[in-house]
Amino acid sequence: MKARVTVMLKNGVLDPQGEAVRHALGSLGFDGVEGVRQGKVIELELAPGTTEDTVVQMCEKLLANTVIESYRVEMG
Amino acid sequence: MKARVTVMLKNGVLDPQGEAVRHALGSLGFDGVEGVRQGKVIELELAPGTTEDTVVQMCEKLLANTVIESYRVEMG
Repeated sequence: MKARVTVMLKNGVLDPQGEAVRHALGSLGFDGVEGVRQGKVIELELAPGTTEDTVVQMCEKLLANTVIESYRVEMG
Repeated sequence: MKARVTVMLKNGVLDPQGEAVRHALGSLGFDGVEGVRQGKVIELELAPGTTEDTVVQMCEKLLANTVIESYRVEMG
């Protein structure tokens, strides 16, 4: 089975990577890009029967820094 | 309006970051993690009326390295 974890910086946390992308898009002539936030997505291939709770624990312990990042888990 | 771009390494392209996560999860006692692929997600805040075509162009020109990465665009 598969799970997908999306980790984003929390609102209010400065995102220099996203800012760099925004500037670069502007330089390339893409107008109207008002904001960019960059995060990471982790696709897990798991043994059958792994619960969403287990994936949440993975996030809390390793995948996300919960001080500055929020995460979302999608199973399936 | 918002758009979300997900960029993943193509199948067959070595993903050392994902491998590192897989090993770390094993070390933490999470059994049954058979594979991990790590990618990036870019959330764009766009001027109203921006089309999906424009976002695809952003991907082709900047957001993804299409030699080794595939991307998916979700509008809304």
